[in-house]
Amino acid sequence: MQAAVAHAWQDLSAVLGRLDALVGARSLLEWDQLCMMPAKGAEGRGDQLAALSAVYHETLRAPSLLRVLDRLDEALESTDAAEHPIQRAAVRNLRRERDRAVRLPVNLVEAMERARTRGHQAWLAARRVDDFTVFVPALTELVGLAGEMAACLVEPGGHPYDVLMDAFEPGAQTSDVAALLERLASELAPLLDQLRGAGWPDCAPGVQVVMPLDRQRQLLRRTAIALGFDLEAGRFDTAVHPFTCGMDPGDVRITTRYNQDDLLKGLGATLHEVGHGLYEQGVPRALRGSGAGRILSTGLHESQSRFWENVIGASLPFCRWFAGHLAQQDPGLAVGADELFRARNRVQPGLIRVDADELTYNLHIVVRFRLEVGLMEGAVSPADLEEAWNAGYQELLGVSPPSAKQGVLQDVHWAEGLFGYFPTYTLGSLYAASLGRAMEAELPAMWEQVAAGDFAAVLGWLRSRVHARASLADGGSVLREATRGHDPVADFSDHLWRRHSAVHQLQRPGQAS
Amino acid sequence: MQAAVAHAWQDLSAVLGRLDALVGARSLLEWDQLCMMPAKGAEGRGDQLAALSAVYHETLRAPSLLRVLDRLDEALESTDAAEHPIQRAAVRNLRRERDRAVRLPVNLVEAMERARTRGHQAWLAARRVDDFTVFVPALTELVGLAGEMAACLVEPGGHPYDVLMDAFEPGAQTSDVAALLERLASELAPLLDQLRGAGWPDCAPGVQVVMPLDRQRQLLRRTAIALGFDLEAGRFDTAVHPFTCGMDPGDVRITTRYNQDDLLKGLGATLHEVGHGLYEQGVPRALRGSGAGRILSTGLHESQSRFWENVIGASLPFCRWFAGHLAQQDPGLAVGADELFRARNRVQPGLIRVDADELTYNLHIVVRFRLEVGLMEGAVSPADLEEAWNAGYQELLGVSPPSAKQGVLQDVHWAEGLFGYFPTYTLGSLYAASLGRAMEAELPAMWEQVAAGDFAAVLGWLRSRVHARASLADGGSVLREATRGHDPVADFSDHLWRRHSAVHQLQRPGQAS
Repeated sequence: MQAAVAHAWQDLSAVLGRLDALVGARSLLEWDQLCMMPAKGAEGRGDQLAALSAVYHETLRAPSLLRVLDRLDEALESTDAAEHPIQRAAVRNLRRERDRAVRLPVNLVEAMERARTRGHQAWLAARRVDDFTVFVPALTELVGLAGEMAACLVEPGGHPYDVLMDAFEPGAQTSDVAALLERLASELAPLLDQLRGAGWPDCAPGVQVVMPLDRQRQLLRRTAIALGFDLEAGRFDTAVHPFTCGMDPGDVRITTRYNQDDLLKGLGATLHEVGHGLYEQGVPRALRGSGAGRILSTGLHESQSRFWENVIGASLPFCRWFAGHLAQQDPGLAVGADELFRARNRVQPGLIRVDADELTYNLHIVVRFRLEVGLMEGAVSPADLEEAWNAGYQELLGVSPPSAKQGVLQDVHWAEGLFGYFPTYTLGSLYAASLGRAMEAELPAMWEQVAAGDFAAVLGWLRSRVHARASLADGGSVLREATRGHDPVADFSDHLWRRHSAVHQLQRPGQAS
Repeated sequence: MQAAVAHAWQDLSAVLGRLDALVGARSLLEWDQLCMMPAKGAEGRGDQLAALSAVYHETLRAPSLLRVLDRLDEALESTDAAEHPIQRAAVRNLRRERDRAVRLPVNLVEAMERARTRGHQAWLAARRVDDFTVFVPALTELVGLAGEMAACLVEPGGHPYDVLMDAFEPGAQTSDVAALLERLASELAPLLDQLRGAGWPDCAPGVQVVMPLDRQRQLLRRTAIALGFDLEAGRFDTAVHPFTCGMDPGDVRITTRYNQDDLLKGLGATLHEVGHGLYEQGVPRALRGSGAGRILSTGLHESQSRFWENVIGASLPFCRWFAGHLAQQDPGLAVGADELFRARNRVQPGLIRVDADELTYNLHIVVRFRLEVGLMEGAVSPADLEEAWNAGYQELLGVSPPSAKQGVLQDVHWAEGLFGYFPTYTLGSLYAASLGRAMEAELPAMWEQVAAGDFAAVLGWLRSRVHARASLADGGSVLREATRGHDPVADFSDHLWRRHSAVHQLQRPGQAS
């Protein structure tokens, strides 16, 4: 390493190491809050989380940090662009985060914190009486504050929604995402029409495996291990709302839930969280504390969960393996691979996003994305949101919410001031399909391996193409390099047509049978 | 509150709140490390703990803090000494902690950190080959550094060992503790002689209740609840080396262990940790983040565990209740109260401190205290420590370690640079007996209540006299006020004579039968 770079890097590393350690500590406090903490610990935990956040932001905003960043930037300028990839990524990521922190006035951040607390309360109250108007004042305040924050951060000529997405998907542009989602909605329409025409085949409750919870836990824990999740570098616990928490590549904790009457519910949740967990465990330890080891793209993170949940976990080869895996543990509960395959790939438009199938899920997202952009542009007012929501559901999904709770009040995101998050869910689905296509081309034996319960090659491919990149580049770039720039909308559409042609004997328009 | 006090207090509270929150966060990281963390998480956890410690010490050493402290001190001077007890305690505690932090050179603290790591390694290596000489170089370094630290902190005319104890027992003086312990050793000698003369009655393995672990866990968890431990403000888990971790009065976690072949092992450990846990839960929530809510006296903390473990938990009334409690859950395992009482009060001098009974335990401490003081005064050299240890055991306990592992290498404390900690264990025993005596005088029905499984009055007494005082005063003062200045050595000696007269029909010299 060039001497000037090395010297500035040493100074920056001390700060980066502390920031990473504070994020790791904060993650543990949050995991514990959801999994272990007794009820009366909430007040103290709130103080502890607030203290860690305050220390984090003071470290980030310190003027001395800017001087070190500038010094490292200057030293890097005199070196070849291909050199020092970690240092370049660290400077880029930290400068971006610091700029956001410095450009937001402290009183605006505090106002948003208070509005989130009020928003959450108002959302709960509105749900209790199933009346959207109860939530409107709090929502109006949240939308206003999000707009003010966006105005502080937006680049000249940029869209205010860009900077809201930027918090979850660095570099995402509203126009690109809008084009992607609208194209996706058109691509999915004919597939949906065929399925509708076929009377939503297999949409009635299919195979349901009733199984005692401790047996399910044992089976799904072994499934996680089979996929490559390392329990010496993680934990496998239970939570009401499953989530994954990685505080370090050596300590990644996944949670899942079980339904005694339906093993497949827990299977889907487990595969999803294992996908997140494998990603976190796959960040190279050499990047720890470097500022390039955190996972910053929510879309890419979601691609890993969707990949294991859907691309792999709802495939026929996986169902073959899993049927055998289940029969081996509980011969009395044996279920056929084809039955499992059909049950894992039911499609039917519904009202609730979190219950949606792989296909219609994305239409739920398109509705929300359009509304969020409309709120930021002022084309939709918070008071009109329920009407606009219902119209969107009717247009895209052909269903009409009978109540606010089953409609515009169903998600917690807006009540928590999270605008710009929803599209990353669909980015995840698209990216997962694209990764699957690229992988198939490079690993011709992959489906045979999956059917045999050998997931090493699949995981190895993800390790090198995605996990090892961590935040050395933004999510979109990592995906383009891994998939050689293939079109993710086309890949996702292909994936769904192939999958549903196999399940439901459909015929894709314009394709020979 | 006087305006100048209120103003300075507001500024100080912000810092105190942050310091308390950082300590709470650190406690959670440590609890998790021992109870939950996967093996490969150790490296990241080390970084997280180091970051929190660094932030804590930077906050403590900040020059701005000293200005606020001085300002508050000045404002308090113009008020009545009985007013503002929380503020006065906060200033005293924080100034004391800050002075220690500021007066220790950073390079000395770092040298001690490294020496502790090396010391722990050397201690493990010495234990593996059972050879004390392997540990001598590391111990020599640790003793030297402890001496250097003491020299930085000691007040003119003070004993260097004062400031080592001060870290665990604020305000403790070497001369006072020496007088206390030597007097204790003389007081215990005749009781020990009588028991020796009686051939160590009941020292053979007595009643052992064999019980499946999950049944033990259920029984002891219900025991903890019966004593008043609040599981909505805490947890009850398993650990190899039981400990208690309080991060907030609303989140106190106790751990215990079980031995399938002997329920009484787990009972003793559970009662001990419940004592610690009740103390932590009893700190008034109003003191949270005030700087007067942390428990600073290790001796007083230990008094609470010893009180529930021994004064209450090995008493005949408690054994009566527990025998019924056990019979209720597992009628097949019923055991007599008298049998239980004898089993909980066996006495026999042995080699290992952590296996010692309530009486001889303190002689193990006297040996260590004398050696620690000798090391600090230069009267004992680290190289001669094993010989001095063995001589001390022969003199006080009448036993001779056949190996270093069963002698001078048995405890981890010195390997971790912990000098001045041991005497707090015995302070705990003495304080527990004194509290028991004062309580008996004020609660004449207490033993009947204990026999009936009603611990509310006993706990209520501790809550008001000890728990609610937190660190509003030092441990010695809290004890003196609670016991009206009674002599704890006499109280402990009385407690043991009464207990063992009842168990073993002994006759105390100079007392009518």
